Amino acid sequence: MKNQITCNGFKASGLASGIKKNGAMDIGLILSETPASVAGVFTKNKIKAAPVIVDMEKIKKGICRAVIVNSGNANCCTGKKGIENATRMAALAANNLGIDESEVLVSSTGVIGLPMPMDIIEPAIADLAEKLHAKGMKDFARAIMTTDTVPKIIMEKGKIDGKEFTLVGIAKGAGMIRPDMATMLCYVCTDIKADHYLIQAMLKKAVDKSFNRITIDGDTSTNDTVLLLANGTSGVSLKNTDQISQFESALDKLLFKLARMLVKDGEGATKLVEIKVRGAKKKDDAKKIAHTVANSSLVKTAIFGEDANWGRIIAAAGRAGASLDPDLIKIYFDDVLMVKNGMGCGDQAEAESTKVLKKKEFTITIDLNLGKGSDRMLTCDFSIDYVKINADYRS
Amino acid sequence: MKNQITCNGFKASGLASGIKKNGAMDIGLILSETPASVAGVFTKNKIKAAPVIVDMEKIKKGICRAVIVNSGNANCCTGKKGIENATRMAALAANNLGIDESEVLVSSTGVIGLPMPMDIIEPAIADLAEKLHAKGMKDFARAIMTTDTVPKIIMEKGKIDGKEFTLVGIAKGAGMIRPDMATMLCYVCTDIKADHYLIQAMLKKAVDKSFNRITIDGDTSTNDTVLLLANGTSGVSLKNTDQISQFESALDKLLFKLARMLVKDGEGATKLVEIKVRGAKKKDDAKKIAHTVANSSLVKTAIFGEDANWGRIIAAAGRAGASLDPDLIKIYFDDVLMVKNGMGCGDQAEAESTKVLKKKEFTITIDLNLGKGSDRMLTCDFSIDYVKINADYRS
Repeated sequence: MKNQITCNGFKASGLASGIKKNGAMDIGLILSETPASVAGVFTKNKIKAAPVIVDMEKIKKGICRAVIVNSGNANCCTGKKGIENATRMAALAANNLGIDESEVLVSSTGVIGLPMPMDIIEPAIADLAEKLHAKGMKDFARAIMTTDTVPKIIMEKGKIDGKEFTLVGIAKGAGMIRPDMATMLCYVCTDIKADHYLIQAMLKKAVDKSFNRITIDGDTSTNDTVLLLANGTSGVSLKNTDQISQFESALDKLLFKLARMLVKDGEGATKLVEIKVRGAKKKDDAKKIAHTVANSSLVKTAIFGEDANWGRIIAAAGRAGASLDPDLIKIYFDDVLMVKNGMGCGDQAEAESTKVLKKKEFTITIDLNLGKGSDRMLTCDFSIDYVKINADYRS
Repeated sequence: MKNQITCNGFKASGLASGIKKNGAMDIGLILSETPASVAGVFTKNKIKAAPVIVDMEKIKKGICRAVIVNSGNANCCTGKKGIENATRMAALAANNLGIDESEVLVSSTGVIGLPMPMDIIEPAIADLAEKLHAKGMKDFARAIMTTDTVPKIIMEKGKIDGKEFTLVGIAKGAGMIRPDMATMLCYVCTDIKADHYLIQAMLKKAVDKSFNRITIDGDTSTNDTVLLLANGTSGVSLKNTDQISQFESALDKLLFKLARMLVKDGEGATKLVEIKVRGAKKKDDAKKIAHTVANSSLVKTAIFGEDANWGRIIAAAGRAGASLDPDLIKIYFDDVLMVKNGMGCGDQAEAESTKVLKKKEFTITIDLNLGKGSDRMLTCDFSIDYVKINADYRS
């Protein structure tokens, strides 16, 4: 299947330039053969990496032809030189591709605070341009990985008025992931035709429902970037609300699947858990509780230990700053009712809950029984390997 | 030294009743021989354990004679029966001591959601009353431990107008610790004479400077309680602002030392780290950054790995929601300047910083260079043992 991941009018490539010491692929390029409308969502962290600063300015033009991305170095906290290097990476790609440098965006991901090894990167860019291929998306997906253990790339196809369109999404990210911003890198290529104002609005909404609903470790990165490029080569254009909503639902589906892949491959993660909150007085209360439970180290270590320790879940809910009545709370592990009226349901419920905890994927539902507000988050467990990975990251 | 920890007019005891399966001490009692003024600070978690609910009502009287505390079971999420059991524990203690049950407070700490084993607890209370002794504080300190590896008990002495007074503080807590509430159990006995309004105000201020400035894992417990009992037997009374501030500084010192002991004994902790933020536009900005850095899993795992990964520190500062200018930030490990103008200071600074990271205790200072706001937090590292302890807690 993965060999067939392509999108009309897009080419991509990836290779190992030597930024990563282990010889893995570390630089990638995407080219749209025709000018594409572009939308972007960037980190809300006040410490922004140089390429984010550069892209936030360039994207105002609304048109993009190519994106160049490296892993292994975040080009963050690198001062003026960092901005120069990010700009230069885009310019070199533009030169090699014979396009305008204002239409080339750039991202970086990896260690913060090291100078970019431009002596390695510069020659690699010419090679990347040469290697561009319609089937190169998979290489690109590999080239942007850091602590990811698998590449994240998927394709969605849809039809509008009988004409087929394609969406290809590629993402990376396994740590420094929490909501309130698409906390990773993600590139979506589509052959739909739509102007950049329209796709910007759609992208923002889709990100809020996907990448802003996942957490791995509660940290927000300095480099987070989601870009959507629409080059119109399918001949499908979005003219009325029906067509827009058809495309939107394909985009939502794609981003949610990618978000799920990120959590599943979270650093050291052994479990993928959906935290659902319902029955809240207000949606915002549901959101607060979902976020607090999904980020609680005690809840996440209990999940790693396959321990149906609902006391930690209810304690996390209680400190979320949301309206709740302890005596009305229900908690389910999948369909097993473990807590009713704020109290445990006894040994049999516990035994059945423990069975759920042994699964690789399950849902924890918290029902507040106060109203109709609901929300959800995807999270993973907090394992010994998470600590190992992050204690040794730079060594 | 510890054998000599006593406070005029107070007796205490501790014993192993069998609540803890491993045979460790698990229930303790403090008695003031005369009625003591009492002040209390309780958890802000909306899920409150039964004894917290009971104490918050009883403490309004302002007078306390005794406190009974068990570990191994939190008596939380236990419904009406839990309230009955907490009330009954206090009543039984009162009967055995021949005092009014309205003047006996009660705390519990341990697993959430299990019924209290009253058949074990009831007979133990009579034994506790018999064992009461002026030198029993040490046993009490052991009896309230959960995942603590050492008891936390200290004494401060001071003089007001030539007369000596004593403060004895006992605390427990190694996990589910974060600020915004004295997130643990702590009992302070003093022989000073002061009414409960005065000591309540002093306790709140002292807690804000100590227990509200520490974090282990960012979780807030459902059982947190700090009680201050003042029985006046030293003959020292607080009449003017000078006397009040002398006592206050002794109380502050005592609570800060106890808070430090909690973090040092944090679950799995191998390092004690002070996060200092200075040069902030406003004090609140400094507080936000200190809290966010102190709670970041990525910062805490890097500290465990003895890795001077300042990129994670600056990234955590950037997501704290505080005013900052990346280009003005300085970061120090103890006295080693590692980051200047938002950029790393190179290999020698890194080598010297790494030496600091190898110490058991050190300070990370973040200087924003924007104004005069400052704040600090005490935190510990996030180790493999933290995960092990919390994955296996109930098994």
